[in-house]
Amino acid sequence: MKGFAYLLFAVVALTGVVAYMAHASAHSDAEADPIFGIKIPPGYRDWKLISVAHEEGNLNDLRALLGNDVAIKAYRAGKLPFPDGTIIARLAWSYVPSEENNKVFGRSQSFVAGAATNVQFMVKDSRKYAATGGWGFAQFKDGKPDPAAALKTCFPCHDPVKARDFVFTRYAP
Amino acid sequence: MKGFAYLLFAVVALTGVVAYMAHASAHSDAEADPIFGIKIPPGYRDWKLISVAHEEGNLNDLRALLGNDVAIKAYRAGKLPFPDGTIIARLAWSYVPSEENNKVFGRSQSFVAGAATNVQFMVKDSRKYAATGGWGFAQFKDGKPDPAAALKTCFPCHDPVKARDFVFTRYAP
Repeated sequence: MKGFAYLLFAVVALTGVVAYMAHASAHSDAEADPIFGIKIPPGYRDWKLISVAHEEGNLNDLRALLGNDVAIKAYRAGKLPFPDGTIIARLAWSYVPSEENNKVFGRSQSFVAGAATNVQFMVKDSRKYAATGGWGFAQFKDGKPDPAAALKTCFPCHDPVKARDFVFTRYAP
Repeated sequence: MKGFAYLLFAVVALTGVVAYMAHASAHSDAEADPIFGIKIPPGYRDWKLISVAHEEGNLNDLRALLGNDVAIKAYRAGKLPFPDGTIIARLAWSYVPSEENNKVFGRSQSFVAGAATNVQFMVKDSRKYAATGGWGFAQFKDGKPDPAAALKTCFPCHDPVKARDFVFTRYAP
């Protein structure tokens, strides 16, 4: 009986481990990005709005910038640099003409958000990301992080707005 | 002396009334709109994002749709009609080319939110607003509600999307 008791214990324990792993996996939305180790922050779609924008050209999207509470507080206070813990999310959707809206307006003028294209994050950690102005960068498509080569282009591109702590977007009143 | 005491009492009482009115005015963000009695809902700028859009033509804006918790819950559940208590806010800003962003992209492609133009609200109350599909409509410029004549155009314009409970905007994933 002693052997059976051990076996039973082992099966119960293993079941627990498997259940835990399944649970953990269901709760980690994405892999970490390969340079900065950033994962998709849980609940970012619920964050408050910073501003909106439209990019033409290859991007051809409509975009919204959302901020976690640290980011929104800093934006509204107008204080730079952004404190550690700031996360700015950039969501983007394909730029789609709305025939439904155009009919109502009586002319072609309305563009709405189509399918999601990708989502980017800037995470402030002045020690961890000291080499890139205190910011870590990440981009995810369908939950998958972009490769290292793509991420290496983030910081040089943000460098021209160093005076605004490397952040392009201004808060929309 | 009795006359003076009355006068003093009257002055003190009047001062109290004036102070109260000043206080009340500072705490009510806006007048109510003249048809539906809607005031600017406190804290709407903190609401969650529904979607974004761009209108060309006379409007020439970038816009964001935000929803209170009732609205967001209904959108995400994909259930129609929207329940009573739903409020949808439409914020809009002038459509401004960003020279700063264009320099970084190396071409003219970037448009950002400029000054706020106006803010609109749809408020669901199926009894109170039974005559207009269960929705009350309001638009505010610089905190001032639009006149009745303007508001009378809201419902007819939303009628073509009756099948979606008179709401144009779809939730952006």
